[in-house]
Amino acid sequence: MNKPKVVILGAGYGGLTTTVKLQKKLGVNDAHITLVNKHDYHYESTWLHETAAGTLHHDRGRYAIKDVINSGKVDFVQDTVTAIKPDENKVILENGELDYDYLVVALGFEAATFGIPGLIENAFTIGSVNQSRLIRQHIEYNFAKYNNESEKNESRLNIVVGGGGFTGIEFLGELADRVPQLCKEYDIDRNLVRIINVEAMPSILPGFDPQLVEYAMNSLESRGVEFKLGAMLKECKPDGIVIEKDGEQEEIATNTTVWAAGVRANHLVEESSLEHNRGKVEVKPDLRAPSHENVFVVGDCALIWNKETDRPYPPTAQIAMQEADVCAHNLATLVKGGGDLESFEFNNQGTVASLGHGDAIGVIFGNKKLFGWSASVMKKVIDNRALLKVGGIGLVLKKGKFNIF
Amino acid sequence: MNKPKVVILGAGYGGLTTTVKLQKKLGVNDAHITLVNKHDYHYESTWLHETAAGTLHHDRGRYAIKDVINSGKVDFVQDTVTAIKPDENKVILENGELDYDYLVVALGFEAATFGIPGLIENAFTIGSVNQSRLIRQHIEYNFAKYNNESEKNESRLNIVVGGGGFTGIEFLGELADRVPQLCKEYDIDRNLVRIINVEAMPSILPGFDPQLVEYAMNSLESRGVEFKLGAMLKECKPDGIVIEKDGEQEEIATNTTVWAAGVRANHLVEESSLEHNRGKVEVKPDLRAPSHENVFVVGDCALIWNKETDRPYPPTAQIAMQEADVCAHNLATLVKGGGDLESFEFNNQGTVASLGHGDAIGVIFGNKKLFGWSASVMKKVIDNRALLKVGGIGLVLKKGKFNIF
Repeated sequence: MNKPKVVILGAGYGGLTTTVKLQKKLGVNDAHITLVNKHDYHYESTWLHETAAGTLHHDRGRYAIKDVINSGKVDFVQDTVTAIKPDENKVILENGELDYDYLVVALGFEAATFGIPGLIENAFTIGSVNQSRLIRQHIEYNFAKYNNESEKNESRLNIVVGGGGFTGIEFLGELADRVPQLCKEYDIDRNLVRIINVEAMPSILPGFDPQLVEYAMNSLESRGVEFKLGAMLKECKPDGIVIEKDGEQEEIATNTTVWAAGVRANHLVEESSLEHNRGKVEVKPDLRAPSHENVFVVGDCALIWNKETDRPYPPTAQIAMQEADVCAHNLATLVKGGGDLESFEFNNQGTVASLGHGDAIGVIFGNKKLFGWSASVMKKVIDNRALLKVGGIGLVLKKGKFNIF
Repeated sequence: MNKPKVVILGAGYGGLTTTVKLQKKLGVNDAHITLVNKHDYHYESTWLHETAAGTLHHDRGRYAIKDVINSGKVDFVQDTVTAIKPDENKVILENGELDYDYLVVALGFEAATFGIPGLIENAFTIGSVNQSRLIRQHIEYNFAKYNNESEKNESRLNIVVGGGGFTGIEFLGELADRVPQLCKEYDIDRNLVRIINVEAMPSILPGFDPQLVEYAMNSLESRGVEFKLGAMLKECKPDGIVIEKDGEQEEIATNTTVWAAGVRANHLVEESSLEHNRGKVEVKPDLRAPSHENVFVVGDCALIWNKETDRPYPPTAQIAMQEADVCAHNLATLVKGGGDLESFEFNNQGTVASLGHGDAIGVIFGNKKLFGWSASVMKKVIDNRALLKVGGIGLVLKKGKFNIF
């Protein structure tokens, strides 16, 4: 009756998918599985930019963990991990500790602020339900204040998004849709509001096809988004930012800076004794940590090299869920006493970036470019696929996106 | 063609009702009527506590002034009055000035803060659409912040209402309904939230029947409202208040203090050369200012003595609209060259105070007490009557309250 103990840290895309796959592969007597997560719900972190803009309610993008796990096979512990001790086969929680035979580290990302002064204190990041609905309320609060002040304060209306990558662009698309609604709500002239993107690179959406990038910029600019490309964020203050472009500094008044220009792995990985490469574990093909063979790492904490591009795969939900498949298979194999472990191979199912309601750009089937309405529909298909994979058709019907017109 | 110039200041209950009554009584050649108002809309100021609590959208309680005035007979000027010069028959606006033969001062109320330290800087008042939707957003913003802070800050969740009079109690009723919704929205335990009423008198709702007062207190307490009666507000800070009761001081942490404990007339009355009694013009029975017989004063800027109680009538929408009837009649008489002027007589149509959705207390037909659902229905009838009086049945159908279940 000495069942192996499997502990899974994090119920994001990687951890929760691993859990639901594993519970299907193992019988109740095969292992003692424990899932640890800070909240009692899972959220679709790729939908959070919509919550932050106020275009999708956060309850549409989250569901109770107990609704998708089999409580006969998995214990759920709602707690916050404070340390990973792989040399002791132990995990420290805020309210206790757990020991394990096998560990899955799926603790996701946090914002990387690159030491820019004031960013941690004054900028928002789109990293959780709590943070996203705070951004939504922060923007709305500033709009509500505007007409209550006799001296008009433009920093209440200007919104700065740092970073023209995937999240930044998707957030800009939602903001461009949302701002006219906010203007109507608070009797504010739309022309007084600036939505500004600051990106250090000369172009947005690195790695995307130039034709699609141009489409995205046109779509956003036509709805009032301003781009400051090749511009470095030098400082973030409570009521403004300083940027530098072509050697010249410019100050932009804003109470709302949303930083979407970089993520890193959860800091607990770096603080542990796991061997890591700039905070991420460069996992073996079977997704185990090279330094600790009973520890699997999936999702944004794992580093896997893409040999085609000679760069690491970016941290995406798609990869995290594919890794979870392999992780669950390999864990089940080990728990049951051995056999061949699978190697992870990324199967690119395409990438679509939303630009707001009814508009998007993307690439599917390897090289098929999509934009506009068809890309927008494909985006919703992708969003629904994540629900399907974890919670089946029932969850898709409950939380899925079907507003394709 | 030397038409008398009538200028009406303010499009609240008193000013707007005067305007629509007057335009019916006068032909296009009888007078040149100008209505001045800060906004291009009228709002139901007796509904603002609902907007402030977040239980009724502000657009439900406001409508465009142009929709109820006859533009062939009335010029509308959207501007802010900065001074009344009755000795020069002139009114100064932010962007111009107007001279008149007859003036109607209907500039409404503003908060009276009795010199309490910090109140002007740190408390909110329910005085306009702008202020009310800011209160709504301020409360929600603080709830949104709560779970984003590792050190839990009770001042974000505590809400203090200063004053247990009509507006204070009606606002508490809406808050009691709203707070559970906010708790659900932001994953906050309802038991962590305090809704506190601070009232200097030993009882709430002065002048109301004691049985109804008890009903109101029970209704609100059962939904979690705390009463601090006989307690003086000594100071209002950004993150808390100090009260004194029975000689003992108590500090309550709160970022949200809403001051509903007193109103005064618009300060422009006191600053003008109109003869006044603590900021209000004690009008003659025909509603003219004793010092200037071509100036009418209606609504919260007018003082009329109630001989029965030997106290002034309180500033209510009901009185303002009844005054407007008399004012319009007398103005029309004067403009047309003279005749007998009517004297104002208050016709008490009853008073109902809402306690939230589906609950209320009130007195109608002189002495008939109402509470619970029937009082709540009567409250909506009263609210709809105000719409009917200004905009007719069309406005009632568009903006009226029919959610009686």
